[in-house]
Amino acid sequence: MKRALSVTREENFAQWYQAVVAEADMAETSPVRGCMIVKPWGYGVWELIQGALDRRIKETGHDNCYFPLFIPMSFIAQEASHVEGFAKEMAVVTHHRLKAVDGKLVVDPDSKLEEPLIVRPTSETIIGDAFRRWVSSHRDLPVLINQWANVVRWEMRTRLFLRTSEFLWQEGHTAHADEADAREETRKMLEVYRQIVEDVLAVPVIAGEKPENERFPGAVNTYSIEAMMQDGKALQAGTSHYLGTNFAHAQNIRFQSASGELEYCHTTSWGVSTRLIGGVIMTHGDDDGLRLPPAIAPRQVVIVPMLREKPEDAEVLAFCDKLKAELDGLFALGSPLRAIVDKKPARAANKRWDWVRRGAPVILEIGPRDAANDVVTLIRRDRLREGDKIVSTATPRAEFVNAVPALLAEIQAALFAEAKARLEANIRSDLTSFAEIADYFGKAAEDDEAAAAFKGWVRAPWARPTGAELEEVETRLKALKLTLRNIPLEQSAPKSICVFTGRPAVEEILIARAY
Amino acid sequence: MKRALSVTREENFAQWYQAVVAEADMAETSPVRGCMIVKPWGYGVWELIQGALDRRIKETGHDNCYFPLFIPMSFIAQEASHVEGFAKEMAVVTHHRLKAVDGKLVVDPDSKLEEPLIVRPTSETIIGDAFRRWVSSHRDLPVLINQWANVVRWEMRTRLFLRTSEFLWQEGHTAHADEADAREETRKMLEVYRQIVEDVLAVPVIAGEKPENERFPGAVNTYSIEAMMQDGKALQAGTSHYLGTNFAHAQNIRFQSASGELEYCHTTSWGVSTRLIGGVIMTHGDDDGLRLPPAIAPRQVVIVPMLREKPEDAEVLAFCDKLKAELDGLFALGSPLRAIVDKKPARAANKRWDWVRRGAPVILEIGPRDAANDVVTLIRRDRLREGDKIVSTATPRAEFVNAVPALLAEIQAALFAEAKARLEANIRSDLTSFAEIADYFGKAAEDDEAAAAFKGWVRAPWARPTGAELEEVETRLKALKLTLRNIPLEQSAPKSICVFTGRPAVEEILIARAY
Repeated sequence: MKRALSVTREENFAQWYQAVVAEADMAETSPVRGCMIVKPWGYGVWELIQGALDRRIKETGHDNCYFPLFIPMSFIAQEASHVEGFAKEMAVVTHHRLKAVDGKLVVDPDSKLEEPLIVRPTSETIIGDAFRRWVSSHRDLPVLINQWANVVRWEMRTRLFLRTSEFLWQEGHTAHADEADAREETRKMLEVYRQIVEDVLAVPVIAGEKPENERFPGAVNTYSIEAMMQDGKALQAGTSHYLGTNFAHAQNIRFQSASGELEYCHTTSWGVSTRLIGGVIMTHGDDDGLRLPPAIAPRQVVIVPMLREKPEDAEVLAFCDKLKAELDGLFALGSPLRAIVDKKPARAANKRWDWVRRGAPVILEIGPRDAANDVVTLIRRDRLREGDKIVSTATPRAEFVNAVPALLAEIQAALFAEAKARLEANIRSDLTSFAEIADYFGKAAEDDEAAAAFKGWVRAPWARPTGAELEEVETRLKALKLTLRNIPLEQSAPKSICVFTGRPAVEEILIARAY
Repeated sequence: MKRALSVTREENFAQWYQAVVAEADMAETSPVRGCMIVKPWGYGVWELIQGALDRRIKETGHDNCYFPLFIPMSFIAQEASHVEGFAKEMAVVTHHRLKAVDGKLVVDPDSKLEEPLIVRPTSETIIGDAFRRWVSSHRDLPVLINQWANVVRWEMRTRLFLRTSEFLWQEGHTAHADEADAREETRKMLEVYRQIVEDVLAVPVIAGEKPENERFPGAVNTYSIEAMMQDGKALQAGTSHYLGTNFAHAQNIRFQSASGELEYCHTTSWGVSTRLIGGVIMTHGDDDGLRLPPAIAPRQVVIVPMLREKPEDAEVLAFCDKLKAELDGLFALGSPLRAIVDKKPARAANKRWDWVRRGAPVILEIGPRDAANDVVTLIRRDRLREGDKIVSTATPRAEFVNAVPALLAEIQAALFAEAKARLEANIRSDLTSFAEIADYFGKAAEDDEAAAAFKGWVRAPWARPTGAELEEVETRLKALKLTLRNIPLEQSAPKSICVFTGRPAVEEILIARAY
């Protein structure tokens, strides 16, 4: 039995990833450099992620808004620390008219804007400007806002979902009267992300605080959730920032306190993006394509009628339609079950492999005998094979219908458990010196073949160095293609000696190669 | 009893509109010229419109996708007819980097793009380019795609929701093997729009075909739904275009037919935008602010506790919370009922007027006596006053809870009926010559005061002139600030003489001032 993809994870993980994105029909590159086209199956996954997260964002008291796509250049200049950070490569709108000259379309030089506009890379500045107008008294606080939007960061080397010039995300922005409230918000939203990514995407993560050098520019604290991909690399899956009063000072967001004094707000921001879809692929995909957790599968049960252009086709189709109608009445994982009968004019074997590659959790193949015997032939995508053999089981229809909500929940749990076991098995916390860490990752940096070998993460004791000392740590790690990921919130005492400084460690930090 | 707004519809409709948008807390202008900030109450309305329409778009077989924000300038040039049309004023991205020079932020001249990028004004070209790649056989057809996106059309004179440089919309794009199928799609989606706008937004419309001069550039037929605002002007509330093979030719979207020949696809596109919110305001608003149809009210029942900082406040709040919990278990208009207890620290009278201005359909005021007697004091926003008196009725709580789903349906129906009656009462179909039409609208063009006077629409017999003859019609109408709106799908025979050409009429067309 040949595999559905032309390349395996072990052969070349990066090519395998591209193959899954293409073969699962998730997305494709566009003629616009760095921008992607998210296709129906990929967008369907995004809509389900959005739906689950949006519900939690609203339940935690936030309102959705929409702010302008464009940001005046002067707003970016205001945020000096911002400018020094990630936000230098940006799409700049300088003109507002095209005109035809000698039958050729050109940018009309007379339409130059007085002030260039930046296509938002993130919206702290434009939303902060609104907060300044909206907030005057402590009674106006907290302001709890979220927006679902596209953002643009000019990227030179792009990879579908993981790093694109334009991507989709949500960005939460809040303003609070005091530090404690803002800090609670920052941690609360990190926890919302952890829950959604683990419970809905079935991707286990480690939540923690970023070290100083990895903070969002302007943030006092940055927290992240980090997921382990199947090549061992870390993927930052979401961030939540406590911005202190830094942005409020830069943008003059002040309020009159209960005691009548004028004070600066404490603000936060937090976001996750379509990058999560890349994380789902690299967590759950296998050498046959994608495997989708049922909670984010646009179709959870795909019914494939085995048609032969013979009279009994009508019975098969009738059986399939009736089965789908039954499934439509069910709930699974808290939502109406999503089933489809694939009636496309294609060979049934091709359809099976289409849905295998796309990662539909349950595939039912229905032939004339199944219809006659009131049976379904069931393929579980998460347990597709035993060796080279495809596993399918014949199950009485009524029994299947009764069991399918529990089956989908089981698949969801099984995918999470598999990924969780991988994460836990691949964090080394027994390395006690930088030399040992370098040795573990070391060869990777030296030759390409070894670099492709699986390496997990290291959880190392450290003394939380800062400033120049931290920069030196960064440089040493960079030489091994490593980065500091985060300082897990869950720490286990006692600590030993910092692997970087030799001083007593105060906590442990995760070290990994990363996307 | 003073009105909630500082200006009435009769005094100045345009200022009244702005006042409602501001006082109902729907949206505000941003520091970016022509771009708006949609605030939580306005965005909540949009989310409900989106939800209802998205369901219908999916039910009719369309998949959501996401295409790039940017369009290469050469794509725009391809569409010659496109360029001559609306799409000349566009935001043009020419550079991709900012840099600091002597402490000042500037556009880096070294970052000039080889080809300028246009911020999408609409996506026919970039989506058509994908269709070209996706379609090769008749088996690939139809392709039925939708996207929810922001688009930018550089506008010189903007008005919140009605005309902004950036707005939110959905754009459907489909490709078909034959003309009949594409034409059916065009009309089907027009009908979906009619249903959503009438049934969900409670805005009555007239569906019809645009005359040749009002077609979308490149379209063979353009259909629209037109709504009558309270100042008598028409608002185009949605359009659906049959594009023939025009775009397919320009972009080489071809397929191999069943008989093996290479043929061009027939394509369609259709869209509605945040402009609909402007239409809701101008259809249902009154001199106290907005009135929202319950189907799109982010909060349908607002419970205002009348707190007095006295011991009985606790009982009032407990009563309100219990009532809200009861309401949360109900369904109204097909969705879970949306209720809220307004616990903001503000005077109860101010809260009442906040919710009146925002147009919450049902407002309940709960004081200590109501709580003690198990009664609610109910204000219906659609029937707020009798003369200057605010109408409120005391209703036993249990009776209210039983009746509230029906009450919300009744309010939805009443708002539609009121608008429908106004539409029907204000279409003149008795004017038989251009002179009579000019006389009806005529004075309007001459002095500003008369121009502000209410004028409805005229439904006039016409001979469907084309080319230069139609241009002359357009010019004559333009002098009276009039436009041809559409040729209603529902026509009543027999026709008389065309008011423009004097030839026998073939149908009737709507003439109106318009937004």
